[in-house]
Amino acid sequence: MSIVVSIPARKTVDWWCEMLTELMPDWDVYPMGEEPDPAGVEYALVWRPATGCMSGYNNLKAIVSIGAGIDHVLADEELPKGVPIIRTVGADLTQRMREYVALHVLRHHRDMPAIQESQRKSEWNQIVVPPAPQRRVGVMGLGNLGAAAAQTLAGLGFETVGWSRSPKDIEGVQTYAGKEGLGNFLSGTEILVNLLPLTQHTRGILNADMFNRLKRGASLINAARGPHLVDSDLLGALDSGQISNATLDVFHIEPLPSDHPFWLHPNITVTPHIASLIDAPTGSKIIAANIIEFDKSGTVKDIADASREY
Amino acid sequence: MSIVVSIPARKTVDWWCEMLTELMPDWDVYPMGEEPDPAGVEYALVWRPATGCMSGYNNLKAIVSIGAGIDHVLADEELPKGVPIIRTVGADLTQRMREYVALHVLRHHRDMPAIQESQRKSEWNQIVVPPAPQRRVGVMGLGNLGAAAAQTLAGLGFETVGWSRSPKDIEGVQTYAGKEGLGNFLSGTEILVNLLPLTQHTRGILNADMFNRLKRGASLINAARGPHLVDSDLLGALDSGQISNATLDVFHIEPLPSDHPFWLHPNITVTPHIASLIDAPTGSKIIAANIIEFDKSGTVKDIADASREY
Repeated sequence: MSIVVSIPARKTVDWWCEMLTELMPDWDVYPMGEEPDPAGVEYALVWRPATGCMSGYNNLKAIVSIGAGIDHVLADEELPKGVPIIRTVGADLTQRMREYVALHVLRHHRDMPAIQESQRKSEWNQIVVPPAPQRRVGVMGLGNLGAAAAQTLAGLGFETVGWSRSPKDIEGVQTYAGKEGLGNFLSGTEILVNLLPLTQHTRGILNADMFNRLKRGASLINAARGPHLVDSDLLGALDSGQISNATLDVFHIEPLPSDHPFWLHPNITVTPHIASLIDAPTGSKIIAANIIEFDKSGTVKDIADASREY
Repeated sequence: MSIVVSIPARKTVDWWCEMLTELMPDWDVYPMGEEPDPAGVEYALVWRPATGCMSGYNNLKAIVSIGAGIDHVLADEELPKGVPIIRTVGADLTQRMREYVALHVLRHHRDMPAIQESQRKSEWNQIVVPPAPQRRVGVMGLGNLGAAAAQTLAGLGFETVGWSRSPKDIEGVQTYAGKEGLGNFLSGTEILVNLLPLTQHTRGILNADMFNRLKRGASLINAARGPHLVDSDLLGALDSGQISNATLDVFHIEPLPSDHPFWLHPNITVTPHIASLIDAPTGSKIIAANIIEFDKSGTVKDIADASREY
């Protein structure tokens, strides 16, 4: 009955081992590779696992993704086949994502970048924008996080539209689905929020073609995964004015390399993958509860569907 | 049947005259002082009227404040006595204030000033804050705007408390009233939002004594009136770290003089009195409807109480 933990940052591994040991006193928790007996390992808790790192564990019951997405797990080409993957979601992560999306949509809506620029020049520049009911905000991806974010935006008064692979019904939100719904979803949208899972179908979806279908001068918020975005297309759209501002929380390479043009671009706000970061006290409780529940019943609510990639 | 308009900026006067003329074709609307016959003036529409400017109108039925507050009208020491004052509020202004308060509370909650400072240095600095339910936000002033702002914050998940002169009941908000409630309201509050009316009782209320009763490192948002704040006390509290950050929308002198220390203070965000600015299309509709209703019935919902000063 043991659990192994693999995360690129070693300090973080120790921290998760400590938290889980405290919450699951009947289990042994080890940094991956330091367990006395690989055959005794039943659960692997991972964030961006190295290729092949799980192939030596023949008795794995489940892999736990430290995050709502499983793309970083599926990226391991030698991933043991058929092992269920448990996503980590929960009220706390949903709450954090609602906050992030509300904050950054409001920042763009109220043109805070321009107001802060005026402040740097000590200029009293009264920028008056239309009220939120006259601002159309689109949320792509309507899973746990996307649906909650869309409802929060509707609650703030925005004209809120949503788009997802399969049709969804969310109170106060006009929803569209599939390829056939994409045009109507994008048309007239002034602030676009990406919360899609990263799959073969969504990789590179934030590209010049999509930007051109938004209202001119639209803003972009990407709080899902870096590879959703074609970086050079965003830079081009900012140059042309088709996109006026962007807030990016996720990047192709993280941490974002210090010489990447996004860092100092005047129309890009960079946040360091903190939209909905799992913190120790809350995240470990969710994960411990999921492992205990899965071990007892063979499933949990947040099981992923590897065939859909999320 | 005529209306006169007085606003310090002449361009703005012309703009209001045009808008109202369009909406009230049966009325004559003039810049104050340009009317053919002062005895025919029944309504004065004012923002920061000059002292004594209304004393020549003997047949005034009401004074309309272009704003939710009436402090700028009462500041006229030669104000005609006994003339009702109509406040300008409405769904649009409430919506705008909800947006502003949500935006700036979230900015402080998620420590955007520090995140933006890290971006300027191209530094990947993952600041993780507690989720909103563990953050106590206090709203002072629970009139139309304050009550709506408090409810919006509660809807975003914050632990929301409110304080007002007389007891109020707001769903999801723990309320306190009067001097005896102030200590409990302030204690533990981490983000303080001021939406009080400016009266003899509230002038200078945002002072060192109040700051010292907040949780250390608290943030301040003032979206009410400049004279609520003792400027030097805020600078002192920022120096000592008792207050960590402030967002100010209103000032003793507006526009804020370009050499004022607030402009370039690293822990102050200056916004140019735009929290809930009345825009032409919406504001003029509210005001026209109020004048027409008052003229018919002798009262409106948004009549002020001069004895309370709001």
